[in-house]
Amino acid sequence: MSNSLVTEATQKNGQKTQVATLESRSGGGNMLRVGVIGYGYWGPNIVRNLHGQKNCQAVMVCDKSSNALNRVRKTYPGIEAVTDPMEVLRSPDVDAVAVITPVWTHYELAKLALEHGKHVFIEKPFTSNSAQAEELVELAARKNLKIMVDHTFLFTGAVRKIKELTESGALGDLYYYDSLRVNLGLFQHDVSVIWDLAPHDLSIMDYLIKAEPEAIVATGEKHLNGVEDVAYLTVYFPKNIIAHINVNWLSPVKIRTTLIGGQKKMVVWNDLVADEKVRIYDKGVQITSGEGIRNLLVSYRSGDMWAPQLEQLEALHVELDYFADCVLNDKVPFNDGHAGLRIVRMLEAAEASIRKRGELVRL
Amino acid sequence: MSNSLVTEATQKNGQKTQVATLESRSGGGNMLRVGVIGYGYWGPNIVRNLHGQKNCQAVMVCDKSSNALNRVRKTYPGIEAVTDPMEVLRSPDVDAVAVITPVWTHYELAKLALEHGKHVFIEKPFTSNSAQAEELVELAARKNLKIMVDHTFLFTGAVRKIKELTESGALGDLYYYDSLRVNLGLFQHDVSVIWDLAPHDLSIMDYLIKAEPEAIVATGEKHLNGVEDVAYLTVYFPKNIIAHINVNWLSPVKIRTTLIGGQKKMVVWNDLVADEKVRIYDKGVQITSGEGIRNLLVSYRSGDMWAPQLEQLEALHVELDYFADCVLNDKVPFNDGHAGLRIVRMLEAAEASIRKRGELVRL
Amino acid sequence: MSNSLVTEATQKNGQKTQVATLESRSGGGNMLRVGVIGYGYWGPNIVRNLHGQKNCQAVMVCDKSSNALNRVRKTYPGIEAVTDPMEVLRSPDVDAVAVITPVWTHYELAKLALEHGKHVFIEKPFTSNSAQAEELVELAARKNLKIMVDHTFLFTGAVRKIKELTESGALGDLYYYDSLRVNLGLFQHDVSVIWDLAPHDLSIMDYLIKAEPEAIVATGEKHLNGVEDVAYLTVYFPKNIIAHINVNWLSPVKIRTTLIGGQKKMVVWNDLVADEKVRIYDKGVQITSGEGIRNLLVSYRSGDMWAPQLEQLEALHVELDYFADCVLNDKVPFNDGHAGLRIVRMLEAAEASIRKRGELVRL
Amino acid sequence: MSNSLVTEATQKNGQKTQVATLESRSGGGNMLRVGVIGYGYWGPNIVRNLHGQKNCQAVMVCDKSSNALNRVRKTYPGIEAVTDPMEVLRSPDVDAVAVITPVWTHYELAKLALEHGKHVFIEKPFTSNSAQAEELVELAARKNLKIMVDHTFLFTGAVRKIKELTESGALGDLYYYDSLRVNLGLFQHDVSVIWDLAPHDLSIMDYLIKAEPEAIVATGEKHLNGVEDVAYLTVYFPKNIIAHINVNWLSPVKIRTTLIGGQKKMVVWNDLVADEKVRIYDKGVQITSGEGIRNLLVSYRSGDMWAPQLEQLEALHVELDYFADCVLNDKVPFNDGHAGLRIVRMLEAAEASIRKRGELVRL
Repeated sequence: MSNSLVTEATQKNGQKTQVATLESRSGGGNMLRVGVIGYGYWGPNIVRNLHGQKNCQAVMVCDKSSNALNRVRKTYPGIEAVTDPMEVLRSPDVDAVAVITPVWTHYELAKLALEHGKHVFIEKPFTSNSAQAEELVELAARKNLKIMVDHTFLFTGAVRKIKELTESGALGDLYYYDSLRVNLGLFQHDVSVIWDLAPHDLSIMDYLIKAEPEAIVATGEKHLNGVEDVAYLTVYFPKNIIAHINVNWLSPVKIRTTLIGGQKKMVVWNDLVADEKVRIYDKGVQITSGEGIRNLLVSYRSGDMWAPQLEQLEALHVELDYFADCVLNDKVPFNDGHAGLRIVRMLEAAEASIRKRGELVRL
Repeated sequence: MSNSLVTEATQKNGQKTQVATLESRSGGGNMLRVGVIGYGYWGPNIVRNLHGQKNCQAVMVCDKSSNALNRVRKTYPGIEAVTDPMEVLRSPDVDAVAVITPVWTHYELAKLALEHGKHVFIEKPFTSNSAQAEELVELAARKNLKIMVDHTFLFTGAVRKIKELTESGALGDLYYYDSLRVNLGLFQHDVSVIWDLAPHDLSIMDYLIKAEPEAIVATGEKHLNGVEDVAYLTVYFPKNIIAHINVNWLSPVKIRTTLIGGQKKMVVWNDLVADEKVRIYDKGVQITSGEGIRNLLVSYRSGDMWAPQLEQLEALHVELDYFADCVLNDKVPFNDGHAGLRIVRMLEAAEASIRKRGELVRL
Repeated sequence: MSNSLVTEATQKNGQKTQVATLESRSGGGNMLRVGVIGYGYWGPNIVRNLHGQKNCQAVMVCDKSSNALNRVRKTYPGIEAVTDPMEVLRSPDVDAVAVITPVWTHYELAKLALEHGKHVFIEKPFTSNSAQAEELVELAARKNLKIMVDHTFLFTGAVRKIKELTESGALGDLYYYDSLRVNLGLFQHDVSVIWDLAPHDLSIMDYLIKAEPEAIVATGEKHLNGVEDVAYLTVYFPKNIIAHINVNWLSPVKIRTTLIGGQKKMVVWNDLVADEKVRIYDKGVQITSGEGIRNLLVSYRSGDMWAPQLEQLEALHVELDYFADCVLNDKVPFNDGHAGLRIVRMLEAAEASIRKRGELVRL
Repeated sequence: MSNSLVTEATQKNGQKTQVATLESRSGGGNMLRVGVIGYGYWGPNIVRNLHGQKNCQAVMVCDKSSNALNRVRKTYPGIEAVTDPMEVLRSPDVDAVAVITPVWTHYELAKLALEHGKHVFIEKPFTSNSAQAEELVELAARKNLKIMVDHTFLFTGAVRKIKELTESGALGDLYYYDSLRVNLGLFQHDVSVIWDLAPHDLSIMDYLIKAEPEAIVATGEKHLNGVEDVAYLTVYFPKNIIAHINVNWLSPVKIRTTLIGGQKKMVVWNDLVADEKVRIYDKGVQITSGEGIRNLLVSYRSGDMWAPQLEQLEALHVELDYFADCVLNDKVPFNDGHAGLRIVRMLEAAEASIRKRGELVRL
């Protein structure tokens, strides 16, 4: 990771945090021992990425399914495979627990983990509601344990590069963040498309835009199974910054495109192309006032486009390395419980707004 | 136009209207004589397309600018070029007036035209507010004159093809209409991006979706000259149909993409590609209930994609032919004053909603 | 594989062969036991795809590298991992040998396998020269053993669909096959870009075009390590059919696009897009003679485009199933030793032509 | 044209020439008077672009068709419209003649023009054969008149930018020039696709690659009207530079893409996209020798991509300005008769090669 990102950033709540850097991963020779609960869709990626890390390792995997556990035993003979989460939570060989289970189980499992003195790495969204998230954050603080919410996208080369651009001032004042995340399926049974897809965009938006969001307006519609499958979120920020998120489970084509408008430069991030995912446009508009409103002089600037080479490391690998570094060296991760809580609050607000057909919900 | 579109459609207000068909253009040998007021950006396209029509012709062009008039005289020596609109409005050689001027002049010019017994072809948006539009519609009805609002997109091969698909039932029940219309500039001095760009999408949506919209939620932000340059509109329809329109003057890239989701088929319309603008996907989702909410069975259907050959005629040419046909043969155009009024009402509602940060405004 | 491809095809040498169909895989309950020699880049894919087949399985893997063997043991505890190829070749538990090693070792290993009574599945290109290929084909015929050359692309959904189109006559008479296969690297040390990349296109071309190629012209240039890194092949067929293959290791972008022109329809196959890899254009040109050469009347037909849903099965999975079926049920695979030999002859001819800067080399 | 291109370049024959720069267009107040012969497909573009130039103007247009002449008179009342080319050739008001007629008339008209003391601007390809071109070049030299061959592409922002990159050394040593120029139609009755489409690529290649081409290999096939509709040209240059041109009238899709590989950087020029036509890739391959041929160490460099803002002026406008400047200020245009002759020689060689199925034809 030659183009080191940003070594320090001011977290929204004022605390100093650190952006993941591979340089920081020396970690003093320690090795974080992780117990993974949940080996369904995402769990195997966690275990695979823990495998081969220098500062952390998976020592235990827990799942109810015996098939899942057999896969674990076959692929990783050195990892203990168990059925009962309490075995992980109580094990003296486990320093941290990765909770990779459905969202409705997060609160209970994370609470138990913290109570047993384990650090927590937990799937997004953090919890089912903000009260749970607040309680976990408070508990972790009291027990001096770390929580990291797995907002994997923040560790992609694309988002790291865009963060570099916003932090350095290259984009100038931000105008808007506008994301389109649509595809066919995968329908969730118990949560709407907002809870399924929007956490990605909300966490990226939260990471890139330093200001605190003021309010949310959400609209959308249900067509098939009683939860919204199409939704549109507007997030208002101070200084006229606006964010918009379009999530849809009923699109015939898959789109993952985000436009970010700044005063100096603008970004188009297309996550589905193999190369040149992030394109930076030297374009802009300048308005100078002539006499009277009808005489505003508008000038457009249209310069080069530039697609920087992005860091190619797998995001989850970088994230887990950073998790181990934060735990081992007592650093506050930027994607900590507070970050997770902010996202859950926005999801709650969006849900409240969509119920009332777009009523403004203040955060 | 071999693949004849739709020969008859029920207008929203119940009246029978007719979709433009070239077959209908015989028109009984008459020739509609048009006076064009306004020869700025769009006026020359109107005059060029009137040129060479079989059932209508431009006989007079009016503009304040002597440069503009000189261009008219040079290019069309047979057309009278005048400075005073009243010359057009009073001329016995003019049957219909094309009002191709800024929106704040529409009401006055159209009213004068109708009062002088002229049919009216008028730029979008129809008027600056719905009261004006209502008055013009009423006046035209009283004087038995036609009004056609120039929603040119409705006459493109792309929209005609999509209309064919919705009318024939090929898409099945509509789920959503989602349009992205963004680019860098062109800033208007006195109207927001909503009044500038959204009329296109609203008129297409109004044409394709037969139901009456119930309410609008609009969000957006101003960054440069005191009017919204970024805006997001949600339009609620009965039967869970939802429309969304994303308009933006501050995008580094130009995008004109509309997704239309139906129960049976889905459409992606990309207006910026040279070929295959309209792509029809045989894709869908089916939900059958098992036992309990968590046991809903979701199945996805993913079949062929098909990009039909589209009618290549210039939209404005088709539209002006249709205008002449409606006037000469006393037909009610589907893009008449009522249609224009519906769009203006939605623009007003969007403006009211955006002022209150997304408050639901009923239509 | 609901849209069953083609159940029978006339092989170039007149023998009846069968196109792989999953329907045929019942196989009578037998299980083909495969020994895999070579576990470098491609070998793991072979073993993974053998895993879970119903009619064949990997029973032994051989590689010189102890790291490779350890990976085998870890992932597939049930498979014997050995260092000496002779252990595979002599094993009574092995019915067929998969030779997944560098091309210069193919002849010797395949010959030994046949001599030990094993069927052979072998990487492309078949051998280093046509004399070797001829000897192996003759040996296999004498010993009544099967050879299948791993031209994996022939088993992709894309090529299977295009084959269906050419076989059914949907494209009409073929005009040309034009393939662009360029990217940055991967440089081979001992063979040119022709031997590295062109076998893919030559084997697809050979599969799709029933006629025998008449002659080859090849041009190209060396820039870095003494072998051609850029090459252009023209293959002449009877009836004015022409094929062209552009292979390049020095392209800044990766392109995998093939144009296929037929009298009735035309195909664009872009293998790098996730969806709609194969697009079928209802386009064409018709020439009718008027009086005199200058009065030929040319008319263009431009109709719909259609992207059929393609079979999603992994090509190698389909191919190995087909291999087992051919061996177990004594069928002649269409990608047999003769097919491999044809490709090697074309590679030799291309090499001879490029040495003489494009001299026509008859096949 | 702020990013001034290249102010001076060494022409292939050793003479100093100048690249068109708008800075040079002052021209000393003179005005070049041009007579245009031919007002069919391309002629109107010539006349339109002459209109409004500061250093040249169209004074006369000649065409056999009275319809064409009527269009001239209507659009440009100030330009004399005549039927007989001799009126143009003999007119004392004409300084230069633009020959915009079919290629088989070029030699005769250009010769007459030169004999009457007129400078010549002439459509590509220059002449039907090289003997004609040589004679015209000799005649112009003897009479001290200019010939400029209309290789319009050389004046596009894209080619000017690429020229800047090759001249400045930014690309490093050139490896290859590879162009794909395919579409459906337009069939010519008397010339093959080589004479129709390849002149564009040959002239660009000739402009960008300073070395003299050594030999040509061409292959192709006829399918419809007795002339090649598909053709592939390879041009060999010294120092292992190779150029390849793929031209095709039978492609279902239109492609205009050129890859240019250099040691330091690589270019992809896609002429069909609205923005970012020229993309520059900081990519490359480095080979360092280890011990033995199998131990060559290959390393790949993959850096940023950059799409510079291109000059937006219409190419023909820039070219005609440059023509006038060369005539008025006695400069040798880089696209002079010698350049035209070089292209004609390559076309002849390609034709000779294709007749003999790829035989190498030395230049």
